[in-house]
Amino acid sequence: MQLLATGNFYFRSDIMNRVNDNFRILPASYLFSEVGRRVTAFKSENPLADLIRMDIGDVTRPICPAAVEAMHQAVDDLSRSETFRGYGPEQGYDFLRNTIVEWDYRRRGLDVSEDEVFISDGAKSDLGNLSDLFSADARVAVTDPVYPVYVDTNVIAGRAGTLEGDRWSRIIYLDCDAEDGFIPRLPRERPDIIYLCFPNNPTGAAVTREQLKEWVDYARREGCLIIYDSAYEIFVADDRYVRSIYEVEGAREVAIEVRSFSKTAGFTGLRCGYTVVPKELRATYPGGEPCSLNQLWNRRQCTKFNGASYIAQCAARALYSVRGRAEIQADVDYYRQNCRTLSEALTGAGIRFCGGVASPYLWVKAPGELTSWQCFELLLRRAGVTCTPGSGFGRCGEGYIRFTAFNTHEATARAAERIAKTLK
Amino acid sequence: MQLLATGNFYFRSDIMNRVNDNFRILPASYLFSEVGRRVTAFKSENPLADLIRMDIGDVTRPICPAAVEAMHQAVDDLSRSETFRGYGPEQGYDFLRNTIVEWDYRRRGLDVSEDEVFISDGAKSDLGNLSDLFSADARVAVTDPVYPVYVDTNVIAGRAGTLEGDRWSRIIYLDCDAEDGFIPRLPRERPDIIYLCFPNNPTGAAVTREQLKEWVDYARREGCLIIYDSAYEIFVADDRYVRSIYEVEGAREVAIEVRSFSKTAGFTGLRCGYTVVPKELRATYPGGEPCSLNQLWNRRQCTKFNGASYIAQCAARALYSVRGRAEIQADVDYYRQNCRTLSEALTGAGIRFCGGVASPYLWVKAPGELTSWQCFELLLRRAGVTCTPGSGFGRCGEGYIRFTAFNTHEATARAAERIAKTLK
Repeated sequence: MQLLATGNFYFRSDIMNRVNDNFRILPASYLFSEVGRRVTAFKSENPLADLIRMDIGDVTRPICPAAVEAMHQAVDDLSRSETFRGYGPEQGYDFLRNTIVEWDYRRRGLDVSEDEVFISDGAKSDLGNLSDLFSADARVAVTDPVYPVYVDTNVIAGRAGTLEGDRWSRIIYLDCDAEDGFIPRLPRERPDIIYLCFPNNPTGAAVTREQLKEWVDYARREGCLIIYDSAYEIFVADDRYVRSIYEVEGAREVAIEVRSFSKTAGFTGLRCGYTVVPKELRATYPGGEPCSLNQLWNRRQCTKFNGASYIAQCAARALYSVRGRAEIQADVDYYRQNCRTLSEALTGAGIRFCGGVASPYLWVKAPGELTSWQCFELLLRRAGVTCTPGSGFGRCGEGYIRFTAFNTHEATARAAERIAKTLK
Repeated sequence: MQLLATGNFYFRSDIMNRVNDNFRILPASYLFSEVGRRVTAFKSENPLADLIRMDIGDVTRPICPAAVEAMHQAVDDLSRSETFRGYGPEQGYDFLRNTIVEWDYRRRGLDVSEDEVFISDGAKSDLGNLSDLFSADARVAVTDPVYPVYVDTNVIAGRAGTLEGDRWSRIIYLDCDAEDGFIPRLPRERPDIIYLCFPNNPTGAAVTREQLKEWVDYARREGCLIIYDSAYEIFVADDRYVRSIYEVEGAREVAIEVRSFSKTAGFTGLRCGYTVVPKELRATYPGGEPCSLNQLWNRRQCTKFNGASYIAQCAARALYSVRGRAEIQADVDYYRQNCRTLSEALTGAGIRFCGGVASPYLWVKAPGELTSWQCFELLLRRAGVTCTPGSGFGRCGEGYIRFTAFNTHEATARAAERIAKTLK
């Protein structure tokens, strides 16, 4: 430790050496910044090019009028003493918890109660913060391809082991491929925690009740916890596919479900989501003492979170009104139309892909032996269209690219034509 | 492990035994629920009693017109395609980071740059989440009395050791008493991380530049990190007291500052705060490799947080306008008037207390040998006034009670008279 003389004192040149060592081994995230860098470079080389962004990961449609009206009302509530709301419940307001239970669960015949629903500032926070509930030696399984946040939050928590090539030694990878429609097979090694996301980001794969039942049964048999990310459930229109994991018998004993209003209603900048932790989720402390994950999560949220914004919660409630439901459905239909446009163009050109049915993502096989980044470059330079290279989501994403449905009808139609021509 | 026969399978009755063991030893929080329980019981026994709540920990004044107008505008932005905002930067919008730097730091002669300011959904989240940056063996120091969140988040992270009586074996307690005006003395044992909060919750103590310099010098000498909670800084009107730790020379090398708009502008239900992590904060990983806490926090936020609400950030920016500054000052003055009312009544009755000058809290010595809870009961039953028992904030809070300035002028005046009569 270097000592520096400053006046009469000797000061150390660095502070405490008790930093979380896991940040040291966490590689810089690379995918989106590299896409951005290449797009910027292309634009400066080709200032007149008509570039169409088909890699947009964010919604583009504005927030629906029902929610906007509710927000104006909520702002007015906060502006008057008689209706002012300060700290809300850490778990969220009952008016929203009750509405969620009624519409997202009871009316679909699913058994979830109000005190199992925890409102938050979004699914990403919850997915990261759930990590607090588990010990550092818990074994985690993720699919490959995978949304990188599942992995990175577990690296920070010390559960990943060491990075060997492109994979972490203690993480169990569930390889997915086109043959199985990008639905993972059961692992050979038993994990404690399994992250599943359906409809999937990035592959767009949706899961049937039968397919998901295998996982729920496995988790019950082996004593695993499933963290089920269903942020894209609103894109499911076909009854064969699951919207909530609680549609599967026994899931209440093994699954936490994380949801978001981001893709449902364009709340990406507003920040509101929720997590369901059923009371049947009985786990045990390392010493064997039983505990309730519902109570654990409640304690975590009460200690480290101070409730979601009142305005966002009022907006979320409005989405369940007759008008709200119709309005958000119209926006989802708008994006779905983009999926159809892209799907038809790809099908017409004989390009292999999946997704785009119950999800805003299309997962497309690069032609021939092209790598994901080669295909990205080809599309950028020949078609003036951007995509997200599949290899950025894991080893099994190599040779694939991802398109999203978040551009306009007009731009999507032009992009679809160019993509079909270029990749054919 | 109990096995249950269900159809053809044997299912385990509990899931993974890899739960964070620290939740097992975290005692249920007790203070505010016990106050609530006793108040409810009193009300049902005395349905006609005119009870005045002087334990309110939340603001009561509505959000100021400048911020309300900005929020209506922000809602409209989100309602139109051309102005819609989706995911914002995880660090917060530049428009707010720049405004904070300009008004809270540069104009006060303090050196803080935009990329050192991280906007969040509130100080409580940041105070809890900062825990992610440190190893489980980091030694933590807290004052006693203390805001319980500092302790509880470190218990969850495994830094507290075991609970021995009312204290954790690995936490270093900095006892505070009336003799030193509830300013802690330097510890005998070196901590890695020191939590300081000025103006203080619960004691209301503010700190002078000279007093805080001792801590900054100590931290520089010993290589400690100070986590400085200045959520109540707007209540400081006297130049002798510090509003930001960066007023002290050398603090940029050792201190993270956590701030909130909750008490500044009544954003408790809106959720917005910020944390400053200076680039001079050089720490080392356990192996000795240097790292920047600014980069670490940035990485943590990018991985586990998705930005604060656009609406809340627009509201926060509006607080710095000419009109916004005048309006929030008027609200703070309103609460300050309550402090004066209480202070005068207590002084007139010869009751010992501190705080209430640079803080919305008054920290009052219970008369004679009364314990905090005995004094609570006395005030409840004889005066029909509630308070928060000081013993709930730690051993050194025993024999004290806390009043807040968050009721109306009228109720505060009535309460002050009753308190003076009862405690005299």
